Amino acid sequence: MTDETTTEIMDATYRALCECGYAALRMQDIADKTTKSTGTLHYHYDSKHDLLLAFLDHLYDQFVENKCAVEGETPDKQLINLIDQWLAPSEDHTDRQFQTAILEIKSQAPYDEAYRQQLARFDRAMADRIRKILANGIERGVFDPELDPDRTADLFVTMINGAQTRHIAVNYSITATRTYLLDYIDVLAGTPPEVAAE
Amino acid sequence: MTDETTTEIMDATYRALCECGYAALRMQDIADKTTKSTGTLHYHYDSKHDLLLAFLDHLYDQFVENKCAVEGETPDKQLINLIDQWLAPSEDHTDRQFQTAILEIKSQAPYDEAYRQQLARFDRAMADRIRKILANGIERGVFDPELDPDRTADLFVTMINGAQTRHIAVNYSITATRTYLLDYIDVLAGTPPEVAAE
Repeated sequence: MTDETTTEIMDATYRALCECGYAALRMQDIADKTTKSTGTLHYHYDSKHDLLLAFLDHLYDQFVENKCAVEGETPDKQLINLIDQWLAPSEDHTDRQFQTAILEIKSQAPYDEAYRQQLARFDRAMADRIRKILANGIERGVFDPELDPDRTADLFVTMINGAQTRHIAVNYSITATRTYLLDYIDVLAGTPPEVAAE
Repeated sequence: MTDETTTEIMDATYRALCECGYAALRMQDIADKTTKSTGTLHYHYDSKHDLLLAFLDHLYDQFVENKCAVEGETPDKQLINLIDQWLAPSEDHTDRQFQTAILEIKSQAPYDEAYRQQLARFDRAMADRIRKILANGIERGVFDPELDPDRTADLFVTMINGAQTRHIAVNYSITATRTYLLDYIDVLAGTPPEVAAE
C-alpha cells in the first residue's frame, strides 16, 4: 500500500469515527470517505478491528510526533505548554465526537487485549513525557527536589483522563482541569528547592 | 410492580450487565436471571434503554444511601472514609466488569440525553458530598480557610473518574490514586489555618 493510500484511509477512518462513533462504524462508512471500495479496504485490513488497530497505531505516531514536542525555555514553561496543548479548550464539535469514539474504545479494552495494548502506549507516552520534564526541572533546580516525578506524572495522566471522561459523560468543561493543572505547575515551580540543585 | 419484583429485576440487571457488558446486553439476558419472562419485563419497561435508565436511578438511590454516608469524628476522617470507600481496592472480577459496563454507558452519553442526565446526578452527588465535608472542615478549623471547597471537590471527582477510566482502559491500579488522595487529605488537614476559625 502506498503512503498516500494509507494516509487517505487513516483520514477517512478519523472522519468516519467522528460521524458514526465506534459502535456503529462499518467498513462501508470508511470506504465512503475514500476513493477506494470496501473490497480494497478488506484487502489491506482483515476486519474493522484490524483497521482500527492500525488507526490507533497511526494516531500514536502522530501524538508522539506532534503533541509531545516540548517547547519552552524552562521545564515549567515546557510543562505548561504541554498541558495547554493536551487540554486545549475546543468548541469544535468534531473534536468532541472524536473524544467520544476514543472513550468508546477505552470501554472496550477489557474485552480486547489488542486495544488495551494500544491504549497503554498512549498512557505510557503521556506519563513518560511529563516525568522527563519534571526530572529535568528538578535537576535544573526549577522544581522542588522532594517532588516524585513518577507519582506526579501519574497524577497528571489521571487528571487528564478524568477531565476527558467527565467531558464526554456529563458535559464537564475541560478548562477547569486545565486551569487547575496550570496553577499546580506554578506551585511546583514557585516552591524554591531547599537544597540547591547542582 | 411490587418492591420485591423491582429488586429482583434490578439485581438481575446488575448481574447481566457484569456478564454481558452494556453493548451486548439483551432483555433476554436479564430475564434469564429472574423468575420472570421477557414479556413481563417488556410489560414494565418499554425497552432495554428504559430498563437501564430505571437501573441507573436505582443505583443512584443506593449510592446516596449506602456510599455517601459520612462516618468519622472529624471532617478529615470523614473525607478519608469516603475516598476509602469510593476507591476501595477490589480484586473482585465482577466489580471490574461492572465498572466496564458503567464506562460503556458513559461513552454513550453524548448520543443519549437521558443517560447523561442520570450520570450527571452521580457526578453532582459526589462533588456535593465532598464539598460539604470540606466546607464543614473549614468551619471547624480542620482545613485551611483559603481552601476552595468547590474547586477541590471538582478536583477529587476528576481524579476518581480518571482512576476508574485508566483502570478499565489500561489496567491501571486504582490504589495509586486512592493513596494520592488520602495523602492529599492529610496535607489539607495538616496545614494549620493561619486565621483561626471560630
